[in-house]
Amino acid sequence: MTLHTICRLLVTTTLFFSVAPAKAQPPRGPLVISPQVNADKSVTFCYLAPKAREVKLSGQFIKAPVSMLKDTAGIWQVTTAPIPPDIYPYSFIVDGVNVMDPANVAFFPNERFKASLVDIPGDTPLVHSLQNVPHGAVSYTYYPSLSGTTGSLVVYTPPGYDNDTNIKYPVFYLISGTTDTEETWYKVGKTNFILDNLIAAGKAKPMIVVMPYGNLEARVAEQKGGIKPGDPSSREGADALMRAKNFDNDLLKYVIPYVDANYRTIPSRNSRAVGGFSRGGGQTLRAAFGHMDSFAWVCCYSAYLSTQEMERSYPFIYEKADNTNKQFKLLWVSVGTDDFLYKPTVEFLDFLKAKQVNYKSLITDGGHTWMNTRKYLAATVQLLFQ
Amino acid sequence: MTLHTICRLLVTTTLFFSVAPAKAQPPRGPLVISPQVNADKSVTFCYLAPKAREVKLSGQFIKAPVSMLKDTAGIWQVTTAPIPPDIYPYSFIVDGVNVMDPANVAFFPNERFKASLVDIPGDTPLVHSLQNVPHGAVSYTYYPSLSGTTGSLVVYTPPGYDNDTNIKYPVFYLISGTTDTEETWYKVGKTNFILDNLIAAGKAKPMIVVMPYGNLEARVAEQKGGIKPGDPSSREGADALMRAKNFDNDLLKYVIPYVDANYRTIPSRNSRAVGGFSRGGGQTLRAAFGHMDSFAWVCCYSAYLSTQEMERSYPFIYEKADNTNKQFKLLWVSVGTDDFLYKPTVEFLDFLKAKQVNYKSLITDGGHTWMNTRKYLAATVQLLFQ
Repeated sequence: MTLHTICRLLVTTTLFFSVAPAKAQPPRGPLVISPQVNADKSVTFCYLAPKAREVKLSGQFIKAPVSMLKDTAGIWQVTTAPIPPDIYPYSFIVDGVNVMDPANVAFFPNERFKASLVDIPGDTPLVHSLQNVPHGAVSYTYYPSLSGTTGSLVVYTPPGYDNDTNIKYPVFYLISGTTDTEETWYKVGKTNFILDNLIAAGKAKPMIVVMPYGNLEARVAEQKGGIKPGDPSSREGADALMRAKNFDNDLLKYVIPYVDANYRTIPSRNSRAVGGFSRGGGQTLRAAFGHMDSFAWVCCYSAYLSTQEMERSYPFIYEKADNTNKQFKLLWVSVGTDDFLYKPTVEFLDFLKAKQVNYKSLITDGGHTWMNTRKYLAATVQLLFQ
Repeated sequence: MTLHTICRLLVTTTLFFSVAPAKAQPPRGPLVISPQVNADKSVTFCYLAPKAREVKLSGQFIKAPVSMLKDTAGIWQVTTAPIPPDIYPYSFIVDGVNVMDPANVAFFPNERFKASLVDIPGDTPLVHSLQNVPHGAVSYTYYPSLSGTTGSLVVYTPPGYDNDTNIKYPVFYLISGTTDTEETWYKVGKTNFILDNLIAAGKAKPMIVVMPYGNLEARVAEQKGGIKPGDPSSREGADALMRAKNFDNDLLKYVIPYVDANYRTIPSRNSRAVGGFSRGGGQTLRAAFGHMDSFAWVCCYSAYLSTQEMERSYPFIYEKADNTNKQFKLLWVSVGTDDFLYKPTVEFLDFLKAKQVNYKSLITDGGHTWMNTRKYLAATVQLLFQ
């Protein structure tokens, strides 16, 4: 196979280019096809940069960036070893600068970094893949939020939601991690396809999934014309706890009432779950422990609360473990052994165990990644509302 | 104002980073705030790249890229002159490489280039801005499409759509341009906010807007495991016309029936509009002229059909001008004087005029840009279904 058949280099003379700023259409470069998943599940990545001195591929399927080679047309290329089927973030490092793959529309919504996504399909379809089953819809909707701002929610409604308007649904509030946006659970987490596939297989109950934006302060600052706040000084510093409290307020006082008023929900604790990844996992535990009357199902992915915070804020959770065990139909905590939060998460589980607070846990391989996060989502939605 | 107060450089020790691949969380760089719109509507752009040799700002608010200056922390910065309020695409050119702004989540969905978006607010809110009015929702939905593939639609439903399920709505099918995706009318075109604001002001009828993906062949290839097709050899070559025909088939035989079956539409020509930008404008004219029984309202932005194509495919449009004028409640064509398609578009209008085919036109300043496209959308939705 020659380089050109792989990279599909086509010098074109196309007339239509939608952001041409001036009278003459600017010349458009050759069409580069990237990434291209090969039959053996190796992947060929291509990047056009005739003037670059060095281009590397960085991705969560390799341990360290690998060099790419330039052809005479100025296209850098590398073909990987076969990659285990999954969806991975990757980027190119062009003379030290991290860039998305310009030929790929699949991207990772994030406040701080820009990455593209490559999807290696399984020999049989993976649970997050687009399959020939009935599909739910994903809506971007706007709600009146804290401080007079307008918040944005991404909402999954299950297949058939619009067909029978007599049916009401349980709701899963699902929060993404630090630097993620309200789009990340949809675009990277593939919440919609995971639910579509599990509902079609009869393994998950039809449910509404509401995905809020975890960084309330950034949005408030943006809409009020202020400066976007930096990262909190530490995970349990006063600023971090104040932000956690603001998020909690927004979720309970604005998001849930808006969703119950605008979607056909079953508005009771037994039909309401909360879950999240990373910072969203912390927000999940705080929302659930602080509002046992609001949530009966709790899914914490790759996160924990410290013993100190449990003792300070939620002693009733373990002092009245019998009640906690009765109230929560599910208290789930999962983490990967390579996760940088593995140790404190295991300590959190040990704490719960010592206090006889029931939980379900799943310890997997891998790190603090969305490959694991999707796995945890697929496992937990099969337990919710059953 | 010092550089640091502008760029908001904060060296952080945050613990949570959602794509950390390994056990240890990788160090996260300083938080860079970019872009920052200043009180005088100048904009400060910042980009962290300590090792870069040259960084320039490229944007549709400047005629040519401008150089940025690096501070001791490795942050490149430039402050522009005041910019007329609007939303503009921009990118950084880092040692010759075009990159999105990593600090900005607002992006331009596109198959071929990566650009960020900067929003310069007006002194009074612009028609595309988020305002305190009732909001519609934007749904990503999936439909059975040509060749056994699954297509994706972005669908705007107006405020109150879910509240009164007895109301049926007219539908505007709105197609984006070459290299755009089905997200571009939403993320760049701000279709939802334009409609929200004009509906709230009583200037537009509540309507459903359906935004399909214009590059059918790319999706079919992706789902069938084939190679994504290159650009057509010319605007009216056999391959371009075959693709136009496929799109037309998909729109009429799959998209419209799906929308009519799954949304509360008024399924008749008098309540159905079609519009589009650039390639989508050509697709619009072909859909409308080829299916007069399906559309009564036609909005062509920055596009045209050649005299040759009119004579070959649509002679009845001008040979029976009286009938055409009776059938189309609106035939709209708009273009900017700096658009590289200005001349052929004016020739198209002259052709229609000579044949006494009625149309409305709007000739504006500016080029083949989404600044103009939003303007045309805001003008036309006030005419639709009235």
